[in-house]
Amino acid sequence: MEYRIENDTMGPVEVPADKYWGAQTQRSINNFKIGGARNQMPIEIVHAFAILKKSAALTNAELGVLPQEKADIIAKVCDEILEGELDDQFPLVVWQTGSGTQSNMNVNEVVAYRSHVLLGGSLKDEKKKIHPNDDVNKSQSSNDTFPTAMHIAAYKMVAETTIPGVIKLRETLKAKSDEFMDVVKIGRTHFMDATPLTLGQEFSGYVAQLDHALRAIGNTLPHLSELALGGTAVGTGLNTPEGYAEKVARKIAEFSGNPFVTAPNKFESLAAHDAIVETHGALKQLAVSLMKIANDIRMLSSGPRSGIGEILIPENEPGSSIMPGKVNPTQAEAMTMVCAQVMGNDTAVSVGGANGHFELNVFKPMMIYNLLNSARLLGDACVSFNDNCAVGIQPNAPFIKRHLENSLMLVTALNPHIGYENAAKIAKKAHKEGTSLREAALALNLLTNEQFDEWVKPEKMIGGLKK
Amino acid sequence: MEYRIENDTMGPVEVPADKYWGAQTQRSINNFKIGGARNQMPIEIVHAFAILKKSAALTNAELGVLPQEKADIIAKVCDEILEGELDDQFPLVVWQTGSGTQSNMNVNEVVAYRSHVLLGGSLKDEKKKIHPNDDVNKSQSSNDTFPTAMHIAAYKMVAETTIPGVIKLRETLKAKSDEFMDVVKIGRTHFMDATPLTLGQEFSGYVAQLDHALRAIGNTLPHLSELALGGTAVGTGLNTPEGYAEKVARKIAEFSGNPFVTAPNKFESLAAHDAIVETHGALKQLAVSLMKIANDIRMLSSGPRSGIGEILIPENEPGSSIMPGKVNPTQAEAMTMVCAQVMGNDTAVSVGGANGHFELNVFKPMMIYNLLNSARLLGDACVSFNDNCAVGIQPNAPFIKRHLENSLMLVTALNPHIGYENAAKIAKKAHKEGTSLREAALALNLLTNEQFDEWVKPEKMIGGLKK
Amino acid sequence: MEYRIENDTMGPVEVPADKYWGAQTQRSINNFKIGGARNQMPIEIVHAFAILKKSAALTNAELGVLPQEKADIIAKVCDEILEGELDDQFPLVVWQTGSGTQSNMNVNEVVAYRSHVLLGGSLKDEKKKIHPNDDVNKSQSSNDTFPTAMHIAAYKMVAETTIPGVIKLRETLKAKSDEFMDVVKIGRTHFMDATPLTLGQEFSGYVAQLDHALRAIGNTLPHLSELALGGTAVGTGLNTPEGYAEKVARKIAEFSGNPFVTAPNKFESLAAHDAIVETHGALKQLAVSLMKIANDIRMLSSGPRSGIGEILIPENEPGSSIMPGKVNPTQAEAMTMVCAQVMGNDTAVSVGGANGHFELNVFKPMMIYNLLNSARLLGDACVSFNDNCAVGIQPNAPFIKRHLENSLMLVTALNPHIGYENAAKIAKKAHKEGTSLREAALALNLLTNEQFDEWVKPEKMIGGLKK
Amino acid sequence: MEYRIENDTMGPVEVPADKYWGAQTQRSINNFKIGGARNQMPIEIVHAFAILKKSAALTNAELGVLPQEKADIIAKVCDEILEGELDDQFPLVVWQTGSGTQSNMNVNEVVAYRSHVLLGGSLKDEKKKIHPNDDVNKSQSSNDTFPTAMHIAAYKMVAETTIPGVIKLRETLKAKSDEFMDVVKIGRTHFMDATPLTLGQEFSGYVAQLDHALRAIGNTLPHLSELALGGTAVGTGLNTPEGYAEKVARKIAEFSGNPFVTAPNKFESLAAHDAIVETHGALKQLAVSLMKIANDIRMLSSGPRSGIGEILIPENEPGSSIMPGKVNPTQAEAMTMVCAQVMGNDTAVSVGGANGHFELNVFKPMMIYNLLNSARLLGDACVSFNDNCAVGIQPNAPFIKRHLENSLMLVTALNPHIGYENAAKIAKKAHKEGTSLREAALALNLLTNEQFDEWVKPEKMIGGLKK
Repeated sequence: MEYRIENDTMGPVEVPADKYWGAQTQRSINNFKIGGARNQMPIEIVHAFAILKKSAALTNAELGVLPQEKADIIAKVCDEILEGELDDQFPLVVWQTGSGTQSNMNVNEVVAYRSHVLLGGSLKDEKKKIHPNDDVNKSQSSNDTFPTAMHIAAYKMVAETTIPGVIKLRETLKAKSDEFMDVVKIGRTHFMDATPLTLGQEFSGYVAQLDHALRAIGNTLPHLSELALGGTAVGTGLNTPEGYAEKVARKIAEFSGNPFVTAPNKFESLAAHDAIVETHGALKQLAVSLMKIANDIRMLSSGPRSGIGEILIPENEPGSSIMPGKVNPTQAEAMTMVCAQVMGNDTAVSVGGANGHFELNVFKPMMIYNLLNSARLLGDACVSFNDNCAVGIQPNAPFIKRHLENSLMLVTALNPHIGYENAAKIAKKAHKEGTSLREAALALNLLTNEQFDEWVKPEKMIGGLKK
Repeated sequence: MEYRIENDTMGPVEVPADKYWGAQTQRSINNFKIGGARNQMPIEIVHAFAILKKSAALTNAELGVLPQEKADIIAKVCDEILEGELDDQFPLVVWQTGSGTQSNMNVNEVVAYRSHVLLGGSLKDEKKKIHPNDDVNKSQSSNDTFPTAMHIAAYKMVAETTIPGVIKLRETLKAKSDEFMDVVKIGRTHFMDATPLTLGQEFSGYVAQLDHALRAIGNTLPHLSELALGGTAVGTGLNTPEGYAEKVARKIAEFSGNPFVTAPNKFESLAAHDAIVETHGALKQLAVSLMKIANDIRMLSSGPRSGIGEILIPENEPGSSIMPGKVNPTQAEAMTMVCAQVMGNDTAVSVGGANGHFELNVFKPMMIYNLLNSARLLGDACVSFNDNCAVGIQPNAPFIKRHLENSLMLVTALNPHIGYENAAKIAKKAHKEGTSLREAALALNLLTNEQFDEWVKPEKMIGGLKK
Repeated sequence: MEYRIENDTMGPVEVPADKYWGAQTQRSINNFKIGGARNQMPIEIVHAFAILKKSAALTNAELGVLPQEKADIIAKVCDEILEGELDDQFPLVVWQTGSGTQSNMNVNEVVAYRSHVLLGGSLKDEKKKIHPNDDVNKSQSSNDTFPTAMHIAAYKMVAETTIPGVIKLRETLKAKSDEFMDVVKIGRTHFMDATPLTLGQEFSGYVAQLDHALRAIGNTLPHLSELALGGTAVGTGLNTPEGYAEKVARKIAEFSGNPFVTAPNKFESLAAHDAIVETHGALKQLAVSLMKIANDIRMLSSGPRSGIGEILIPENEPGSSIMPGKVNPTQAEAMTMVCAQVMGNDTAVSVGGANGHFELNVFKPMMIYNLLNSARLLGDACVSFNDNCAVGIQPNAPFIKRHLENSLMLVTALNPHIGYENAAKIAKKAHKEGTSLREAALALNLLTNEQFDEWVKPEKMIGGLKK
Repeated sequence: MEYRIENDTMGPVEVPADKYWGAQTQRSINNFKIGGARNQMPIEIVHAFAILKKSAALTNAELGVLPQEKADIIAKVCDEILEGELDDQFPLVVWQTGSGTQSNMNVNEVVAYRSHVLLGGSLKDEKKKIHPNDDVNKSQSSNDTFPTAMHIAAYKMVAETTIPGVIKLRETLKAKSDEFMDVVKIGRTHFMDATPLTLGQEFSGYVAQLDHALRAIGNTLPHLSELALGGTAVGTGLNTPEGYAEKVARKIAEFSGNPFVTAPNKFESLAAHDAIVETHGALKQLAVSLMKIANDIRMLSSGPRSGIGEILIPENEPGSSIMPGKVNPTQAEAMTMVCAQVMGNDTAVSVGGANGHFELNVFKPMMIYNLLNSARLLGDACVSFNDNCAVGIQPNAPFIKRHLENSLMLVTALNPHIGYENAAKIAKKAHKEGTSLREAALALNLLTNEQFDEWVKPEKMIGGLKK
């Protein structure tokens, strides 16, 4: 490979001749060989930085601290980044400095040097027309830019991937709930036979879980919409012009299409990442809900002959490399694996969030990596589960009927008529002797055949809670 | 010990002669010897059950399914429980059936048998005047009562212990922040010297964290205010009279003084405990915030001679059994231990919440045990930390002054005047040679003595963000 | 209440007149009102301290730094503590100083003042004949005694409660595995019907899990057997006589009956608690295993009519307050709740373990509280699950037979004869048309009736892995 | 893109014309769009599969169930995979079926179709000369191959990346410990000044932690060396020839260079992944240790002027985009972020491990993804931290000296001479009045100047624990 020499305040560094990055990016490449390509800083952070750098440059120009032509070329390069044209210029891994300084400098360098080239310069020029620190990073510090990029990227991922994915699945489950509202089936508590409900009622619980999860996620967005930018090094806003913080937040809101505002307290925004902890906590709640739902679906569909078997799910692929004809609830499995991962990520985020010191939390890249990962996985998994499983769920009438008719817990309907203890005698006798409830009830002389017909009606045991 | 015989649907059981509980409580004692006395079901759950049973009895009477005199005696016993007179009648441990059925039956039995005694009966009577299931548990199931008791107890603990504790600490930190707003000190990022801020600004970040935590906790209360009662066995409301769910929720709200409502979807309320997951998630966020704050306080107060030493905290007790005169940040240590515990409890709650199946989650006792534990510990720890540490915090002026004057990062103020790279040269020279910034700057001929005086003023570097 | 005045280096404190503790204990009571009585320092730690203080006193006497008569009276009081006679003298909570100094001083004070009384003095005497620091704490610091007490208590709980509990359950499961080794049943993968195995083989997997867990726990004991005592304040052993560390460890080993040794590196023993992290990690692995096993047992026993229903478990108590005759897998539920708790405790222990600084980890009380809690709960839960569930497990022959005969996955036996794809055709046809495999196979002309008989024999499909 | 048609038992699928994979791989691509390219199954699993498939083919040939020429061509393709030539043929993501069936089939298809091409066939041929199931997957199931590949990949990563990385760092820290063994410095407990020790002693604690971590990791390797292969679908070994399991394990050991053996109980190996839980638990312990060590290093190096400042670490890159000349402990930050991640991954692994059901755990891909991730990150981070930080650590003599001389805790040396309470008086007086210990001691008339000289010698307070 061919190299050129770039300098920073520590001296010269060899940089690949054709890359736009400079000395500080290269130092990070050299010093942090941890985890390889899979561990690169998420590209969403780079794109969030592009919005930020563009907004900052234009604000700086408006406030008179950066020449307009510098702002314009910076903005132009940021647009290139946003269109994905420079994605290969951001090679740094997550496991770098905990402030994300090196990724901020990676962006500063690429924007500066690409600007220099667009302005007619050559990468080999020792002096570039745009300076990474003095121009691109103007009125900024890594300490306020990186958390700003975190919030931009996180908000976007949650709003554009997670929430729509959950809503899609929620709508399908709601339609299924409505469709199945009259399908009476046995209930199960403690995994044991219980009193009946309808399949639609069962699914309505899932819908309620997702509604609560969506509300919980939504509750966290205001905190996530607060931007640190304008706090610079320690939150005081040193070296920023008057009015900068508010103005730049408005620009970011405009360019990103999300309702960002400047954080009322910048010290909190740099020193803590409770907003990330908060949003990830809501994602973890969603994971808990989805694990319950996906477990139910796989257990309800179990069989096809020797399980619960009350619903049918789509057969998407051969299930086994050795057992011919086997079909498995693979979407539920992908979903529950994602949920377990999100539960783990939540621990990582909490540990990182709790360990900030003084004016700066230095677990930033790790925290945003996990948040973006969880938000993406949950959104994608909801869509995958929806499209390849939920939309195709159908009741399996013969199994539902057989289980319902067999159930001893229909005896509960007799409580108000003959008391809990007499009802228990009937159930126990039937269980012990393998007979039906009716047979046991009559044998015990606790009621007449007609009373049994009148009182034990599964379809009357499902309450008035249908909607 | 003397015993009497009590019966349930499974047959006779020996029960201590003088205890109000019956056969099912005793079976649980016999069958679940796990963890000993420390692991008893929290008394808050018992008291929540008392509110619930009273509300249910009175509602049942109003709706004509329970004689008024039965309702009245049940209510009377519930009041005794609420006054703590029967606390020793609830011996069961957390580690029992996952539905909490046995604790529900413990309450049912104690209420029924104590009622029987109040009505003139003897514990030795085979037949009691009030029946645990048919009367006390009327229109109820463990499956809807236990989660209702969970929400009552949790809401109460969060609203009456956690939130006031946090607010108390928040108010103190706010007062300190105001008081210290002009105390200029060195900032620290990456644990390294950085540009200055004021001690009041530093503390304002803590206040902002607690404000966000309070808001996050508050956001979870609506979900927690939803009561499962009226769902009975599987959520359908089998064996409940018309209008029961709404009416009983209103009574519970009235008796508890908290804004409870009937859950719009009872299937969710029995099968999942996402409300517990949600509230605990917010408590975990609070723990993350408090760990950061407490860590800062202990590190800022470290020394007294060879640490950071910028604040003084109250000396409450001898700090060492071997090192005479040692004083330690013990309140910060208690606080951070509590925070670590809450982070662990959050994992337990999530695992439990994710593993419900079909119509019932059977990790109920474990989940509420952790929530009550976390909510109580955080509230208590905030008050303890407040009263024994935060209120007494004072700046340590000599250390603050020395650190500020030594700082090389005041050089940042020169960026807009001489550029980042020249400023770096000054800082590096001073660092290398152990001199002051001024000396290095002049030696490098980068500015004049007067310019240094004009540009490098720590008190001008702290921004306009003061409030 | 009546009070007397006690003094420490900070001045006078009011102490209940009849209690043996002194000023420092009282300060801790006053300053740490966190969590209430449930949160008291585990009594196992107090008893471990008694072994330690006795060992230290006798070693000090042997090495000539403490008069023999002082050592003797200290030892005598320690024996009283070990017999539980002074349990009400240790009121401090877990949430105190992170070094456990206050609990060490609680023990020092009680031992000193009780000694004073035994020597004829009165609690009201200002000067006591035995000094908490200079005599009882001789050659010690909280920083080495508390971790020593942690290891003593932890080793004992793991060795005497956890391991025997696991072994008891392991032996029962092994006996069941042997007993059921010829009970051929359907296998289930992905919760779906799969090729057959025997019930004994299924249970042999559980035995193997517990064997691995026992080995993993055993692997951690050597680290846990290392004692910090002799390191004093920071690990250097300041103020200890020559030979003290080795000698006192031998005494502790002798008095406790466990193979303790002095830690080769005392700096590690004070500054980190990786031994606690290590042992708790193994307990967490055990929890993971037990959750799997308990889940299987409850799912295998589900029904009684509309579930899997292949095993019968003991009916220990009425399962429902509303559904008469219901029996639930309550022991499995207690077990899985314990497992979830242990998984949570593991997070807490890890967070505490990771956050030690310099010469001392100050999450000590929290860490040992969780370890003792987990170790006790797991041991107790294994015994409870064993005695009230595992010993009574029986196969449910009719369900096993029906599920096996229905299974389409017996088709796998045909792979070597007709190939995977033809076998899949048979399974799919049978599944689609609701027929038997034989019918489908013959209809497809892929084999003869006789070949089917010869090739498809569930009892030949269970391999040679039986032991 | 051009496509060809491939068939599986479910029918035809369009596959990119130039790819070696077949219908089942393509179905997985189509059905699991979760997480994108970053979430691909780790290539280490693919390479482990290559060892496995080669070993199985050759064993099958030896045992007479596969023609030798088929085995030979399969082995040849496996070698190509191992050389990385086919890495782009394995596009599936982690979030697929929980058994990893689809990745097993991906390998089966690529090996079969690449073999077909090597044997002169064309990808467009409907019938291939080697069959993915009947030949490549001969005597195997996904259920035993995937866990086998998990163990092969995990063992290799731990043995070849994690352990050597830790050892490298351990050796450096040991050398530093030896080098600094006479550098007397102040100790710190509770972050507060304490009695002295040497810098070498402090570092010896880190070495001891890593030694314990290495031993703990080593303890888990025997479980990890057990291979599931030979268990096929449910653990019984259906459709495997006599002697297969032992023979194939020997081949895998030979080809991989690691001491693999066949698992004594295959039911455990399929249904549970306690070996993964166990090894990850040890990695988590290592993470806990490394977080402590890295925190210490960054705090010890804090400053350069207003922190602890007792060691100097290499200056690798400019530390700030706004503060000129700033140098940060970036390697410590990367390390602690990795540690937080590993702590989170441990939760994910535990949740997955606990949720297997019956004969199969279906969190396999998630579990191995986290184990490989943690093992790699820890190994890499140790090397990075070692090379870019640890090797360059030097004591900062002036700071060490100043802190030591200032310390009030040297007073502890007086305990044996004048008692704890008198010593405390001296320390308190000095602290209060800002004087030296000597001044305070003389003013109190508690000892003479000469006694002070004789008794208070930091270099005598560091014990005999040096090695």
